Amino acid sequence: MKKVAVLLSGCGVFDGCEVNEAVLTLLTIATEGASYQCFAPDQEQMHVIDHLSGNVAEMEKRNVLVESARIARGEVLATTALEIDNFDALIIPGGYGAAKNLCDFAVNGADCEISTLVESFIDQFKQAQKPVGFICISPVMIPKIYPQGATGTIGTDEETAAAFDVMGGQHQQTNVDDIVVDSKNKVVSTPAYMLANTIVEAHKGIEKLVKKVIALT
Amino acid sequence: MKKVAVLLSGCGVFDGCEVNEAVLTLLTIATEGASYQCFAPDQEQMHVIDHLSGNVAEMEKRNVLVESARIARGEVLATTALEIDNFDALIIPGGYGAAKNLCDFAVNGADCEISTLVESFIDQFKQAQKPVGFICISPVMIPKIYPQGATGTIGTDEETAAAFDVMGGQHQQTNVDDIVVDSKNKVVSTPAYMLANTIVEAHKGIEKLVKKVIALT
Repeated sequence: MKKVAVLLSGCGVFDGCEVNEAVLTLLTIATEGASYQCFAPDQEQMHVIDHLSGNVAEMEKRNVLVESARIARGEVLATTALEIDNFDALIIPGGYGAAKNLCDFAVNGADCEISTLVESFIDQFKQAQKPVGFICISPVMIPKIYPQGATGTIGTDEETAAAFDVMGGQHQQTNVDDIVVDSKNKVVSTPAYMLANTIVEAHKGIEKLVKKVIALT
Repeated sequence: MKKVAVLLSGCGVFDGCEVNEAVLTLLTIATEGASYQCFAPDQEQMHVIDHLSGNVAEMEKRNVLVESARIARGEVLATTALEIDNFDALIIPGGYGAAKNLCDFAVNGADCEISTLVESFIDQFKQAQKPVGFICISPVMIPKIYPQGATGTIGTDEETAAAFDVMGGQHQQTNVDDIVVDSKNKVVSTPAYMLANTIVEAHKGIEKLVKKVIALT
């Protein structure tokens, strides 16, 4: 049975992992007959957003690993606990958490850096030539992880696509129900809620991405 | 287009709404061509559980409506904002939040009471003879909402099933991939994570429940 690592970035679209994207990823992995293990970096979130008002909750602090456990029903490991030989692939759902906690693209754009705990985690999959799937905004990490040049998509947003290219990647526009495959680097990406208006639209692209990532193992 | 209200109870299985169950409910509603609107009571959670350690976070307080917004991408309304004429049905996912925030079954068992904000909300669907779907542990509210006697399931847990009957309901054992239908009261229930070992198992029962609830409208 193929085993897929899923990297979460908190719990909630505005300051963490997009909940629908995470669950649709887990559902498709399991439906395809593979198993999964969730991971998250043990670090403080950039901030906490009140998801009802949209405002920053100035007084609150939350931890990415602890909040990710809400999606994973407690079954989540710190990124430092990865044993790469036990896994065939990695998938990273989106949400602002991917651009605020996994890296700081939401603040620094093309000058962003990836969290050390996250970079060393993803890098192990790259070094082992195991496929990695990036969903929604998380593909902004592709050019940093694959500096020799890699193709990916964040959908059609021009500013984000331009930043992707400035960082050394080759951005390719895609529709919400489709994926971009970089076979050489074993990198797959899909826009999901960068473009999706409904959960059904997000589901289509994510289903395609998960199937392709598993096929590349 | 049929419109389904979905009642959330926070965000995270141990102190709020079970995230997988909620998303699988939303996915199936949309896949069936219906639309949804999430609701939650504007009240404090019973408590906050650190989902990594499983311990109560003594110093923390969180609000059910605000945390539910994490699942709903901000698109959640307070239960008091319900306009019953705009909805065809209601579905209530599980998680401990259903037994800690929507009612206090987790503390008081068969002597439980339903939160006033929640009882008046569900009661409007009952009065209008609109179908209600109960998932996982949330069916423990059925005997309180339908005191004239109603059939439901929480799976196979004997203690919970006995409490269901003590409260005046008729409990019926069911497998994880099946539903119990009380046609007279238009009440449908399924065990989901009361029994599910995998997200695929939970998905099967929830899919069946959502389809039946929509068919009863």
